[in-house]
Amino acid sequence: MTTLDAAPVIDTTRSPHARLHPVALGRVHLTDTFLEPRRRINRDATLLSQYRHLEDTHTLRNFRRVTDGSGEPFVGYVFNDTDVYKWLEAAAWTLTEDHDPALEDMIAEATGLIESAQDENGYLDTYYTAGREDQRWSNLKDNHELYCAGHFIQAAVAHHRTTGSEQLLNVARRLADYIGSVFGPASQGKCELTDGHEEIEMALVELYRETGEKNYLELAQFLIEVRGRGVLGADESHQTFNSTYYQDHTPVREMNRVVGHAVRMMYLMAGVTDLYLENGDQGLLSAAQRIWTQMTTRQMYISGGLGARYEGEAFGDDYELPNARAYTETCAAIGSVMWNARLMAATGEAKYADLLEHTLYNAVLPGWSQDGEEYFYQNPLADEGNHRRKAWFGCACCPPNVARLMASLPGYVYSTAKNEVWVNLYVDSEASLSVSGQDVKLTQRTEYPWDGKVELTVGTAAHFTLKLRIPAWAEGASLSVNGEQSPAPEPGTYASLERDWQAGDTLTLNLPMPVRRVRSHPRVLENVGRVALLRGPLLYTLEEVDHPGTALDDLVLLPAAELSVQSAPNLLGGVVVLEGQARRSPQADSDLYGPDANEAPTASGSGSVKLRAVPYYAWANREPGQMRVWIRER
Amino acid sequence: MTTLDAAPVIDTTRSPHARLHPVALGRVHLTDTFLEPRRRINRDATLLSQYRHLEDTHTLRNFRRVTDGSGEPFVGYVFNDTDVYKWLEAAAWTLTEDHDPALEDMIAEATGLIESAQDENGYLDTYYTAGREDQRWSNLKDNHELYCAGHFIQAAVAHHRTTGSEQLLNVARRLADYIGSVFGPASQGKCELTDGHEEIEMALVELYRETGEKNYLELAQFLIEVRGRGVLGADESHQTFNSTYYQDHTPVREMNRVVGHAVRMMYLMAGVTDLYLENGDQGLLSAAQRIWTQMTTRQMYISGGLGARYEGEAFGDDYELPNARAYTETCAAIGSVMWNARLMAATGEAKYADLLEHTLYNAVLPGWSQDGEEYFYQNPLADEGNHRRKAWFGCACCPPNVARLMASLPGYVYSTAKNEVWVNLYVDSEASLSVSGQDVKLTQRTEYPWDGKVELTVGTAAHFTLKLRIPAWAEGASLSVNGEQSPAPEPGTYASLERDWQAGDTLTLNLPMPVRRVRSHPRVLENVGRVALLRGPLLYTLEEVDHPGTALDDLVLLPAAELSVQSAPNLLGGVVVLEGQARRSPQADSDLYGPDANEAPTASGSGSVKLRAVPYYAWANREPGQMRVWIRER
Repeated sequence: MTTLDAAPVIDTTRSPHARLHPVALGRVHLTDTFLEPRRRINRDATLLSQYRHLEDTHTLRNFRRVTDGSGEPFVGYVFNDTDVYKWLEAAAWTLTEDHDPALEDMIAEATGLIESAQDENGYLDTYYTAGREDQRWSNLKDNHELYCAGHFIQAAVAHHRTTGSEQLLNVARRLADYIGSVFGPASQGKCELTDGHEEIEMALVELYRETGEKNYLELAQFLIEVRGRGVLGADESHQTFNSTYYQDHTPVREMNRVVGHAVRMMYLMAGVTDLYLENGDQGLLSAAQRIWTQMTTRQMYISGGLGARYEGEAFGDDYELPNARAYTETCAAIGSVMWNARLMAATGEAKYADLLEHTLYNAVLPGWSQDGEEYFYQNPLADEGNHRRKAWFGCACCPPNVARLMASLPGYVYSTAKNEVWVNLYVDSEASLSVSGQDVKLTQRTEYPWDGKVELTVGTAAHFTLKLRIPAWAEGASLSVNGEQSPAPEPGTYASLERDWQAGDTLTLNLPMPVRRVRSHPRVLENVGRVALLRGPLLYTLEEVDHPGTALDDLVLLPAAELSVQSAPNLLGGVVVLEGQARRSPQADSDLYGPDANEAPTASGSGSVKLRAVPYYAWANREPGQMRVWIRER
Repeated sequence: MTTLDAAPVIDTTRSPHARLHPVALGRVHLTDTFLEPRRRINRDATLLSQYRHLEDTHTLRNFRRVTDGSGEPFVGYVFNDTDVYKWLEAAAWTLTEDHDPALEDMIAEATGLIESAQDENGYLDTYYTAGREDQRWSNLKDNHELYCAGHFIQAAVAHHRTTGSEQLLNVARRLADYIGSVFGPASQGKCELTDGHEEIEMALVELYRETGEKNYLELAQFLIEVRGRGVLGADESHQTFNSTYYQDHTPVREMNRVVGHAVRMMYLMAGVTDLYLENGDQGLLSAAQRIWTQMTTRQMYISGGLGARYEGEAFGDDYELPNARAYTETCAAIGSVMWNARLMAATGEAKYADLLEHTLYNAVLPGWSQDGEEYFYQNPLADEGNHRRKAWFGCACCPPNVARLMASLPGYVYSTAKNEVWVNLYVDSEASLSVSGQDVKLTQRTEYPWDGKVELTVGTAAHFTLKLRIPAWAEGASLSVNGEQSPAPEPGTYASLERDWQAGDTLTLNLPMPVRRVRSHPRVLENVGRVALLRGPLLYTLEEVDHPGTALDDLVLLPAAELSVQSAPNLLGGVVVLEGQARRSPQADSDLYGPDANEAPTASGSGSVKLRAVPYYAWANREPGQMRVWIRER
């Protein structure tokens, strides 16, 4: 086994309560025309340009100043170190691919800077080092020291897994050891404090998995269990930054809904699920599943995007899902992918893999431009043409978060369990798996996400159960092995095929992809009388550039109107579009308020207009203009 | 003429470009059962409890610490001095009423504290005095020094007008003189800087009116004209606190919409209109009128409330008017009243008086509890029962703002012009006016806002034109003099009656008050398929307490359903309610998203339910529960 083979993204290999175990990154090679080209852009354009931004924004110099005696001030937000860490994690996962000396040089530089910025006692945070030592841990609520530590630990674990080098892992151990000497139960004479921005919990569980050091798991558990005493944001007079914002209003095992800052909430839940995977505490899993159900039935955009409010980058009330003012931070979607991956590992339930996929395609990918060098922080579902991706942000959390997810993507495609191979994502690929001691080669051929036909060829004779995710949307899915029809699989489950597989056995899965018209719960007020279009795993949207001269709110897609599915290989890097006839039904140019304001549209200008919907992930890559996910039906 | 008679609220008496001139506070006595009892509560409960809050929150001690050598730190927000100033202005206007030794003692104490907190050079701001002198004017964008000065000047003007005392006016003159020595055109060797929170502009115009000192008018003009260079919030990376937030993105005479922080915008426009009233600069008036039209046709809630966004307490995009998440700060509504009063004075157009009245009843009064001791900061148009008034706030701008408006209210009821008496507001009252040298007594008898019949009796023989505001909603209004019918007046104008009035002449105005059903422009997405109810000047709403066991979103008020108008003297201090039959049409308890999610309601549980709407100003004065202004029609 080479080192590269030993790089699972979330290492539940020995987690006693994991239903699924990971497949190492280096054992899965994507060969498709959708995700893999994006991963190539991630490696060739995104990582390089991000490293330049880390220099241009002084984020790397914040590390240099610790040791170079320049006396330069720290620049940027207190949590800017994490831009380096997330970039480094992305770069580390990327090392499982081709040899790339330029990238390795950048990694070596960043690694060296981090190592030399660590204090003798293990402390690491360039905001507080070289000048603010006396203020360390003085503002755990706002100043993100443990959040920074968490992102560093994740990078160090990735670096160790993909390179085998102990260099950063040792830095991470020293840091975690030091944190563990400071924070813990008061009964042990430690600081029983609550952290302001969750992240370190899942990082510590991964560090435990990587090192076997139980203290790290216990520290993760302490940091999770200490929450819920209302310590953070206790000043009730602040309407946004209260204890709910910090998920400190109630103990996690008593929570029943997502609350507060969306990214914090996702990272917390990922950490909670990670902790369950190790200790089997059913109270944690029940809470996670209960909260997940509340989120998906009350607080989630149709894109999978999370966080309705700009104020506090936070979840809103039930059904509060404004479209143009959706906050839907790209990082929150990435956090959701991370949480769903852990719930999938914990339970093997298809709904978590469904949401992981849906969120990846419709809430993460929109946050990233097609050239890989611009990003959305917010991902609205309606726009007038003003919301455009940017090369970087003052708070640049999203860009390197996209990079680390894209770099680690092959790790989510397959899982294994005892005598089982699980296919979680459909993507043209080749995999070399280890199932209960048997080496199994698997080839997946598909045009997914554009077409629902998937051919899986087993390359090695072996006895195992193949578990295939049948997405909840795949009504009428069918399955055959070597041309022989199997029983119809049930959408929303994993189909099981146990047999003595022979080399060359081919399984054909058909996931029908008709256009789906989806409506909202009536309490999602902005969507009343509107419909959204989906096909397969993709959400669609309207853009003004495809409807010149027509305001998108004047288009009415009658329920009976037929929609055709058209391949458009030259559009937006190659997409499938949905086309049909819409009624042009101009909205009355009425007063803001009046007896008849929102009544029947004016007759003038009505008629028929060709409607074209494009995948939502690709929006805002052409000339600026209106965009609408939700289309009038009346 | 006594001193009390000389207390106009906005003194356009000698303003060369004023169409209307003010009637002094002391010359109008409200005798009605709606506004006057609230003014009594303002005097007897609100002002007293607010003074206690000023003590309890250390806001008065911030003044004491300047001179008492205690070395205590400043407490609270940098602008907390304004809580004292607004309270003092409210108290000063209240002095036009009965002798009130307790109130006079409090005024004397506050006055003395302010006077002794002033620096020798005229500077006044307790945050910067006694310890931070070297930082003065160092952060004009955020630290509100000129905003504080503005509120103080307004209080000093009110104090001078109502007491005749020069004590505070002299403090204000020294302060304004000092500010004028620091800020002004660079060509005069002064700091050509832009202020971060408008307020002082209108205050300086009033100080000019009070003192005749032209420098103050010029300083106001400088502070208005210097805006629009994009100096404030120039950091483009911040999405909210950019130059638009501060109304510094474009010169005011080029603006065509309300933008940014709503209170700042209203105060700026009040100052701009005040400046026009003195210098007749048509570019300023045109801008003000253009912006007013944009605001009222694109950005105003049906309540008159302003500011759609929590983030930045700001105006949103066109038609962005969420109901439950309406920000609609009480102070923004008060700012709108102040601006509309100035536009009314400048033009004599009824639409400004209409909006002044509408905003008072439906956007200011809801911000104040019936007992006068609790307040809303935000005034949503839908709620689940969690939004309740509070006794005070960390940022307590709204409470004393309500108090000063209520205290000054009689000043808005009547205006005069050459040979004209203008009736702007209908309220049972007695007035003693001076019209072109003639003393005119006027008695107004009416049950307004509950009934649209108004009887005006002229108490003195005189020749003048009586101008009566006919609200835009008053279709079918009629008018008679001494029982003799006059031509039907036109809604949305001032009706004119010129004659030799004899003592005892009685004019009867009938403003029909049917229930009005109002709908929104279709781009107000949350209100699609919904209707709001109004009657006379009042907006109505539904509260859960009147519909036990029925979710308010399950109620459908069919367009044909009759609504009756019922007096409810024991409800909410005595109100008129609207009652009718609604269809109980439960919303499907559907998935968040699905093929049929927002389609036809379930049949089960349907039926007929009695609907009762109460005035919106009175909401949240009973047990907590759902509230909805916008009612389903389908």
